[in-house]
Amino acid sequence: MHNLFLEKLDAITVKNNSTVCVGLDTDREKIPIHLRNAPNPLLAFNAAIIEATRDLVQCYKLNFAFYEAFGTMGHEALRRTITLIPRDVVIIADAKRGDIGNTSAMYARAIFEDLGCDAVTVAPYMGEDSVGPFLAHHDKGVFVLALTSNPGSRNFQYLDCGGRPLYEQVVRTVLTWNRDGNCGLVVGATHPSELAAIRALATDLPILIPGLGAQGGDMVASVRAGVTSTGMRGIFNNSRAILYADSGAHFADAARNATIAMRDEINRVRDTL
Amino acid sequence: MHNLFLEKLDAITVKNNSTVCVGLDTDREKIPIHLRNAPNPLLAFNAAIIEATRDLVQCYKLNFAFYEAFGTMGHEALRRTITLIPRDVVIIADAKRGDIGNTSAMYARAIFEDLGCDAVTVAPYMGEDSVGPFLAHHDKGVFVLALTSNPGSRNFQYLDCGGRPLYEQVVRTVLTWNRDGNCGLVVGATHPSELAAIRALATDLPILIPGLGAQGGDMVASVRAGVTSTGMRGIFNNSRAILYADSGAHFADAARNATIAMRDEINRVRDTL
Repeated sequence: MHNLFLEKLDAITVKNNSTVCVGLDTDREKIPIHLRNAPNPLLAFNAAIIEATRDLVQCYKLNFAFYEAFGTMGHEALRRTITLIPRDVVIIADAKRGDIGNTSAMYARAIFEDLGCDAVTVAPYMGEDSVGPFLAHHDKGVFVLALTSNPGSRNFQYLDCGGRPLYEQVVRTVLTWNRDGNCGLVVGATHPSELAAIRALATDLPILIPGLGAQGGDMVASVRAGVTSTGMRGIFNNSRAILYADSGAHFADAARNATIAMRDEINRVRDTL
Repeated sequence: MHNLFLEKLDAITVKNNSTVCVGLDTDREKIPIHLRNAPNPLLAFNAAIIEATRDLVQCYKLNFAFYEAFGTMGHEALRRTITLIPRDVVIIADAKRGDIGNTSAMYARAIFEDLGCDAVTVAPYMGEDSVGPFLAHHDKGVFVLALTSNPGSRNFQYLDCGGRPLYEQVVRTVLTWNRDGNCGLVVGATHPSELAAIRALATDLPILIPGLGAQGGDMVASVRAGVTSTGMRGIFNNSRAILYADSGAHFADAARNATIAMRDEINRVRDTL
């Protein structure tokens, strides 16, 4: 299906030969000491990380919580970080929004129009009219939570709903919403066999796959399970293992090396497909 | 159970003899023309609404989307609106957040510490470790989405999960999370019979009940179903029918009159219990 978001995602995947998404979960308490007194420490850190990794990545994922926690300084960092990202690299707003229709429309406006992000993560619980206003932005990607990477995914997502787990009901429902080709899914790397089953249902959808690194997801298994038959449309996120690869003056070089290592490890699996 | 959030909620319910929550879903395109050129139109509008209704309400609910859609101006309006609300009136951050543990902890910090709200709405899909960091703020209320007011509530919330609808599984699970007495639920006024069944399970929990007014919820039925046996712990939200009761110079008087009418209509039902 012809869709501008998918075109952008596929183009950068090829150009940078990468399915790595660097998660900018920038925590002021974890950034190097010499940056903590910068006018905007979050922005100064992000600027260095982006400069060091921009030719190696497919996406940057901005975890909104980490910016909202710092009020005006955080919002300024979020807004200005977006302006530092090359135009052909995909920006995912990891905001997990979802509300009644008129409210979701406002969130979509904030994320796509005011901030200029390319994609967003949304929660499925409130159903079609909570996701629809995001999907109405046809040239933007909308990643619906299916099976998340965290321990709490066991509370509800595996509940048996008429012979199928809830997460599979969500996936099957999202496929019916994909009229404009801009739906995606979020599936944690901590569930590689379920990821393979979801990829078999959603053969062409982009899948955002968090949970590598600090959360312990299996890299090789999740790459094998998560990409399409041609090795595309998997988006493998790592945050902490890249951002905080080194806590000192050489953090940006360390982040670059960690990103190269991750890209290459993924590509070795992609090359065997 | 002794809990500071519940104490605050019960005290203002008694003091103002009100279970009305005014939803500050402030839409720049709907506020009176004479305010649209104010330095911060959202803030000017909210200030007038709060001044006109502060002695009539139990809560104000801030719908974060409406502020985030306006960038820096919106964030400034949100932050300063909070400072205008009397200290004994409950402030609910209607943000519907929920993410992996370390991220939810950042959202909780943003909402409770940076902004100073009393309560938050959260999405259940990601399970216990996504809600836990909010609950860890023992003196703050955490309202988990159970059965929402919108049409999309039909997509997943009614799915049969082992003989019970998903929303009931959520309610029963939330009851097990309520160790500190600070859990609440969100149940739409558009589902009064389900609301009665949920109240029977969650006899003492505060329930936030949106969906009155523009969304068509049944006021009398939802009050009867939603409050405790002593007429407490129901939080009846109305946004558009109060904020935009009049579109002209007398909007604040009209909002006051609409709030009085709603409070009195609810109290007539509460008085019959």
